[in-house]
Amino acid sequence: MSDICHFNDTLEKNAANYVPLSPLSFIKRAAAVYPDRTALIYNNTHYSWQQTYSRCCRLASMLKQFGITRGDTVAVMLPNVPAMYEVNFGVPMLGAVLNAINTRLDTEAVAFILEHSRSRLLLVDPEYVDVVEKALARLKGPAPIVINVSDPSQGEERLIGDLEYEALLAEQPAMDDWQLPPDEWDAIALGYTSGTTGNPKGVVTHHRGAYLNAVSNVLSWTLPQGVVYLWTLPMFHCNGWCFPWTLAAIGGTNVCLRRVDPKVILDLIKQHKVSHYCGAPIVHSMIADAAESAQEPIHHKVSGLIAGAAPPASVLERMDKIGFELTHVYGLTETYGPATVCAKQDGWDQRPPEERVRLNGRQGVTYPLQEGITVLDPVTLKPVPADGETIGEIMFRGNIVMKGYLRNETATNEAFAGGWFHSGDLGVIEPDGYIKIRDRLKDVIISGGENISSMEVEEIILRHKDVQHVAVVAMADEKWGEVPVAFVQLRPGSELKEDELIHFCRENISRFKAPKKIIFTELPTTSTGKIQKFMLRKQLETEPPT
Amino acid sequence: MSDICHFNDTLEKNAANYVPLSPLSFIKRAAAVYPDRTALIYNNTHYSWQQTYSRCCRLASMLKQFGITRGDTVAVMLPNVPAMYEVNFGVPMLGAVLNAINTRLDTEAVAFILEHSRSRLLLVDPEYVDVVEKALARLKGPAPIVINVSDPSQGEERLIGDLEYEALLAEQPAMDDWQLPPDEWDAIALGYTSGTTGNPKGVVTHHRGAYLNAVSNVLSWTLPQGVVYLWTLPMFHCNGWCFPWTLAAIGGTNVCLRRVDPKVILDLIKQHKVSHYCGAPIVHSMIADAAESAQEPIHHKVSGLIAGAAPPASVLERMDKIGFELTHVYGLTETYGPATVCAKQDGWDQRPPEERVRLNGRQGVTYPLQEGITVLDPVTLKPVPADGETIGEIMFRGNIVMKGYLRNETATNEAFAGGWFHSGDLGVIEPDGYIKIRDRLKDVIISGGENISSMEVEEIILRHKDVQHVAVVAMADEKWGEVPVAFVQLRPGSELKEDELIHFCRENISRFKAPKKIIFTELPTTSTGKIQKFMLRKQLETEPPT
Repeated sequence: MSDICHFNDTLEKNAANYVPLSPLSFIKRAAAVYPDRTALIYNNTHYSWQQTYSRCCRLASMLKQFGITRGDTVAVMLPNVPAMYEVNFGVPMLGAVLNAINTRLDTEAVAFILEHSRSRLLLVDPEYVDVVEKALARLKGPAPIVINVSDPSQGEERLIGDLEYEALLAEQPAMDDWQLPPDEWDAIALGYTSGTTGNPKGVVTHHRGAYLNAVSNVLSWTLPQGVVYLWTLPMFHCNGWCFPWTLAAIGGTNVCLRRVDPKVILDLIKQHKVSHYCGAPIVHSMIADAAESAQEPIHHKVSGLIAGAAPPASVLERMDKIGFELTHVYGLTETYGPATVCAKQDGWDQRPPEERVRLNGRQGVTYPLQEGITVLDPVTLKPVPADGETIGEIMFRGNIVMKGYLRNETATNEAFAGGWFHSGDLGVIEPDGYIKIRDRLKDVIISGGENISSMEVEEIILRHKDVQHVAVVAMADEKWGEVPVAFVQLRPGSELKEDELIHFCRENISRFKAPKKIIFTELPTTSTGKIQKFMLRKQLETEPPT
Repeated sequence: MSDICHFNDTLEKNAANYVPLSPLSFIKRAAAVYPDRTALIYNNTHYSWQQTYSRCCRLASMLKQFGITRGDTVAVMLPNVPAMYEVNFGVPMLGAVLNAINTRLDTEAVAFILEHSRSRLLLVDPEYVDVVEKALARLKGPAPIVINVSDPSQGEERLIGDLEYEALLAEQPAMDDWQLPPDEWDAIALGYTSGTTGNPKGVVTHHRGAYLNAVSNVLSWTLPQGVVYLWTLPMFHCNGWCFPWTLAAIGGTNVCLRRVDPKVILDLIKQHKVSHYCGAPIVHSMIADAAESAQEPIHHKVSGLIAGAAPPASVLERMDKIGFELTHVYGLTETYGPATVCAKQDGWDQRPPEERVRLNGRQGVTYPLQEGITVLDPVTLKPVPADGETIGEIMFRGNIVMKGYLRNETATNEAFAGGWFHSGDLGVIEPDGYIKIRDRLKDVIISGGENISSMEVEEIILRHKDVQHVAVVAMADEKWGEVPVAFVQLRPGSELKEDELIHFCRENISRFKAPKKIIFTELPTTSTGKIQKFMLRKQLETEPPT
């Protein structure tokens, strides 16, 4: 008998020693261990963990009444209000799948998503009634049941039909007979990526990954039990980077807010002693603006996670000045949000400011419970040398990678080719093993046969003191194939001229990489603060030739 | 088509999105992310995470040379020296199973364990050469290969054979081609419980559970990245409560020490700014003694986990005075060490000292990533009311429960009867949901048909200011069946008399629960600081009748 047998025979899984991993276990424990601690604050509403758990159970029971069952999709189009937090638990309690729709999408995209996801039920905030009504009108198949999530703080609201969230919740018994999923590989959520071309793809995530990344957030950020967390990050974005589940795992307090208003944010931070929040660079930048002009400084320590784009030097410096500590993370919808962290090393804080910004601006290392990140040649799948120079594609492997794209076998197979998840981002490995993004695959500019990283050019332009935001894209060129063009948003009051800025670039970067043209303009951003380069490319097509 | 299908079809596990959970992933990440940070300190030896990882890889490679393969058992009999840390990684890197033997066991027990575990190889510290030689001589089957782990700090040492750990490690190439286990349910360790009757049972744990409880320690104790941890807890005890793996998960520093010497401990805490350590009450008590008599106080914050017995009031109070923060945890070898925590609630630290001691002395609530703990009637498996009065058996359920007992189907089935792991400890649920142990099943004294909790009697006796340690056991009695007898260790200088102490008890507890006899003596403890009641019972059998 092989010795492996006596460690396996008669030592099978049973109800006492095996439970599927699911973040639903976290809220059950939070309600049991911290029943009276505040789980959620929204305006003047305070819910304890016992109340929040009870509301989630009642939500599950209400959905069940509408016929929702295992494997059904429930869509939501909600800002960061209490219902948006609750759906992260109430929907999976039934084995159903949460499809949180980006609230800034247009009618066409919303209609596509409702149809493709086969959503059976939709929770909607009255703020989005117009776009939802139009989207519903476009559907070819059966329309989902619509439940309105009214918000008394918003005054008069127009509803779709007559089903209302709070009224329905109030009718439900406080039942507690939901079950963990039979399999931890079961889908928990569906998130559509905002593809720049073609139809959006539906990223399917599972209970096991949601559980592990929720815990990973705690390890990565050393989150204390009972933390007070502010919802500046939209919860529709990769399920709020798994933070709804993280907060339950540590019995913390969720401070909700309808929209990202810097003054409101500052007030909430002071009033509730918020210690942690997440957001794109633009969010941190707005907070810095507000903090700098506020009369009363913030007296306690605040930590932020920054992602969505590399943190500009100015943001890191300004947050440092107001005493906020920023940590840079990076990931994609396909990796449940953050999948790398720019882990701070001993001694970094003694380095000169410029060096510190450079070090902290990198995408970093594998997130604690992710298995691996690397940069591979996208064709040979061989790792690039850790020289900070050789560009390859950033790839992930581990339990915090999606199941795949919903009903899209081709895209799924492509994404997982060779046993790695292909992020589509180009990067390098620096000599200390930290990864730095160079560009999106499609953002590379190929000029005279040479690759130009649009991000490298952007970084140079951002060093000019008059520049607030910048985006560099490729423009077709008869001679060179493509040339870089920069869209620049100047700081208020600046009168910088195109030739001055081009001259500045040429002094700081290889001549062929300097933009051939500068367009001064306000820059279009996505809901998560990313600049929408495809809009700029469209604009270029209609620009008069130089 | 059911909707569950489109979330499962073509969305299977693959190399990119599924990896078996194993704590081996933690050390790989620690070496990659914190290569130069100190992983381990022992006397004047300092190893970085890169060095520690490399040593573990070389250990795996060395074991492979000796023919060790998946499912083989590797036994160790070592104090908390570097090799003892390394085996927690090097052994499972081959898919082999670590059997860490309690270093205080006698020849007979060691021989039984080596035989029953089918250990193929044994790493031994020269301190235990005598007992190991005698145990090897008793073996009926083939003897394991013996490798001596010499310690230059110990001067002249006698070895068994001529294989030496450091010499063998030095010969190995720094290879890195080990694999994660094919299945996260594979055994990682085997730990023998120190049963008081019959042969010890071999508790088999798996990679998944080890991974989850290692992380659970971080959540429960809010362990920061890069913590400095002192090894006062023997690593042979439930794999050091999973802390070898926890330290790798957060890239902390392990401060090793050969034996629990209060002066050495105090010096190490000061010298290395140790912030965290674990131990039985006796360990904390010794540290308090040493700290109180030290000339120079400790200037930084130190946190301890206390387990193995309910923390006596005096220990909690004294540690409070020297500025140490204690947290009470509870568990068994079968639950990978800690499986509950007495989670501190807001406001507890404002309560009066006596109340605080009572609150913090309970076994508490489910450990963060354990699924459930409860107190059930051992026959009906119905939960007892949360009244703090009704006694039942404490039971666990979740991923942090063993696979079962090695080659002992009867004991395994009994332990898992009804889908719960039966701890053998009796307890109550208090109205706030916190669990409190009343007794070991076998420690209950049945006197005149009434159950007496020996622990309840002990708590009363401990309140007497002259009492340092106490153990209450049953003594056969013609009239009552059994009566309680107390073994008491007095504080130095006390001249307390038997009748005075019995009188004190009768004033504070039901008369039938007061001990009928008091024996003043020094109390025998196990290696983990538990009082060995079975020795006291034996002694009683030979005592002259009262």
